Amino acid sequence: MSKIVTMIAPVNIAVIKYWGKRDEELILPLNDSVSATLDTNVMCAKTSVCARPEFFENEIWLNGKKESFTNQRLENCLHEIQARAADEKSVSVEFLSWKVHVCSVNNFPTAAGLASSAAGYACLVSALAKLYKVKSDVSSIARLGSGSACRSVYGGFVRWHAGVNHDGSDSVASQIADASHWPEMRALILVVGETKKKISSTSGMRISVQTSELLKHRIEYCVPLRTEEIIKTIREKNFAKFAEITMKDSNQFHAICLDSYPPIVYMTDVSHYIIELVHKYNKTCGEIKVAYTFDAGPNACLYLLDKEVPKVVSLLKYAFPTSNSEFITGLSVQAEELTGDELTSLCEPQDTDLIKYIIHTKVGEGPTEIVEDSHLLNDSGVPID
Amino acid sequence: MSKIVTMIAPVNIAVIKYWGKRDEELILPLNDSVSATLDTNVMCAKTSVCARPEFFENEIWLNGKKESFTNQRLENCLHEIQARAADEKSVSVEFLSWKVHVCSVNNFPTAAGLASSAAGYACLVSALAKLYKVKSDVSSIARLGSGSACRSVYGGFVRWHAGVNHDGSDSVASQIADASHWPEMRALILVVGETKKKISSTSGMRISVQTSELLKHRIEYCVPLRTEEIIKTIREKNFAKFAEITMKDSNQFHAICLDSYPPIVYMTDVSHYIIELVHKYNKTCGEIKVAYTFDAGPNACLYLLDKEVPKVVSLLKYAFPTSNSEFITGLSVQAEELTGDELTSLCEPQDTDLIKYIIHTKVGEGPTEIVEDSHLLNDSGVPID
Repeated sequence: MSKIVTMIAPVNIAVIKYWGKRDEELILPLNDSVSATLDTNVMCAKTSVCARPEFFENEIWLNGKKESFTNQRLENCLHEIQARAADEKSVSVEFLSWKVHVCSVNNFPTAAGLASSAAGYACLVSALAKLYKVKSDVSSIARLGSGSACRSVYGGFVRWHAGVNHDGSDSVASQIADASHWPEMRALILVVGETKKKISSTSGMRISVQTSELLKHRIEYCVPLRTEEIIKTIREKNFAKFAEITMKDSNQFHAICLDSYPPIVYMTDVSHYIIELVHKYNKTCGEIKVAYTFDAGPNACLYLLDKEVPKVVSLLKYAFPTSNSEFITGLSVQAEELTGDELTSLCEPQDTDLIKYIIHTKVGEGPTEIVEDSHLLNDSGVPID
Repeated sequence: MSKIVTMIAPVNIAVIKYWGKRDEELILPLNDSVSATLDTNVMCAKTSVCARPEFFENEIWLNGKKESFTNQRLENCLHEIQARAADEKSVSVEFLSWKVHVCSVNNFPTAAGLASSAAGYACLVSALAKLYKVKSDVSSIARLGSGSACRSVYGGFVRWHAGVNHDGSDSVASQIADASHWPEMRALILVVGETKKKISSTSGMRISVQTSELLKHRIEYCVPLRTEEIIKTIREKNFAKFAEITMKDSNQFHAICLDSYPPIVYMTDVSHYIIELVHKYNKTCGEIKVAYTFDAGPNACLYLLDKEVPKVVSLLKYAFPTSNSEFITGLSVQAEELTGDELTSLCEPQDTDLIKYIIHTKVGEGPTEIVEDSHLLNDSGVPID
């Protein structure tokens, strides 16, 4: 009888953005990217997997809902883990023939555009790797589920190497620095109310690759330089430079989207107001204290050091009035607010509820096995309510 | 005694955008640009100039308000015209020593971000050229007032050659095709309510030149190709291709702004909604019938052929409900509206008054002398109320 393996895995937010594939099926990127992995205590995916001889077919439940397993990306991940296990002879041939049940949940809203697929696929692949006793790097397998998932396979600061091989064997993630390297680093995720349906990253990337004349220049000249530079700032814990590169790369990614045809627009007036506010705050401070970065949606992720959090949170509360009693979630925030004069000199309060809520988190570890008894599947491989 | 010269001059809206100077003082651009000159019957600047021996100093009145003449750009224009007149010996040395009075008005709101400085400087320089009997091309002098003003010196479709000379002598405008070449071409200017103060084009360009890594690629590779292509589409009256290049170049210009640091953002959610609507409309038509282009502000200029105007206007009225009884100004619009089904399939009505008003106009002539008696200055060189 097979044991049940349960793992949790983190989300990650890129500071050098992944945008554009050189191979759509193998999910091979045109450029390297760099991200920070965020604390699983605040946001995580949790996945249980088990394989049993009596299972009739592969089954999966996502966030409480039965989904079809005939999803190319999902099947690719399972098959690749099984192939790796066969190579490594880590489990019996019989075990490899058994069907699997998968149950996965996110502890944060998937609709909020918060890299849920990265955490989900990193979690699935890590749990399967544990189940099949695969010892080698599985980031290239997580990549087959969702490109950026490969970065969630490691904690701390992570680089996804674009690689050059046609089979994607060198398109893997590696750790730049572990979660303990820069303990002061914090992230504030500003969840902006979505008002329109957005184009998926997969479609958006395809349009950019096919139509953006500027993308080529970004890939060839800008990203390689920035990747080396930002890795240096991480190693040296040079926040101001880290923040500047982060902001520039976020802006350039959205510039590429806008240069696509038809143009792709993920940021809204609220996103741009957040950008303006961050630049004003940094200017007032006389040095760069906060960085913003935006993925394929209007939500901002602000990177900043712990000592800056109370001040920035007080600014955000002033600038974005809220009717939400749980406006700030995640890690607790110490009270060291900006004064009324400082606030009024920086901005005017905007309309209420432009930001729905803020998640306060930090850099954290990679996927972790949950050993205590809190599996999502029971002994029969059925979800526990 | 000197006569009074009065001229009117047009605005122009670029389809290949000017963004970035190689010389700030001489206003020399990094790239060629292309525009259409718009009908002075709908929008124009009007300027009267006169020179008299008894004038004590140079004086100027702009839109009913006395302004200082000690403005570098204004002085440069006057001195260059006078230098040209001296070269050409077109007037007496005595006449050249007289001070001038200038009175200028726009027949459209200057605050609306509608290229008022282009029309204003083209008008001033054309009127001065007439006053001083300068016969040679004055586009390079208008350029000293405001870069894009050099394009308003000609009617029809106009190219501003970036030039290579250090003194700017070859940074001049030339006509691609006159106003009668493509008589079906129309423009709809959608004046969007401004909500925030914007960064001036002069400052914006400077930031882009100093910080945008993508600008270089735009200048070297994208614009030269697009300029040749769009000139071909104008000559061949190939609307679909003309429109596609126009939209791509507008998007790329705003992409460069976003790639600047700090990022420069001129378009708003409303601007992006207009873009989305145009792409949807074109898709429904099965071919490109409308092009959008945005300058350094949220206002859209739509280029389209005359037969499309009634349908597009009905779409805009449906999508952007208005409380303005004079929502459409300028040329009259024939009634040939989209059906209710067509409208509902394209969009949902947005909030009221997101677009303040629409100006319907067409391609028109360059600066023209007004010969009938409607000068803005009286015989004593004082503004007529």
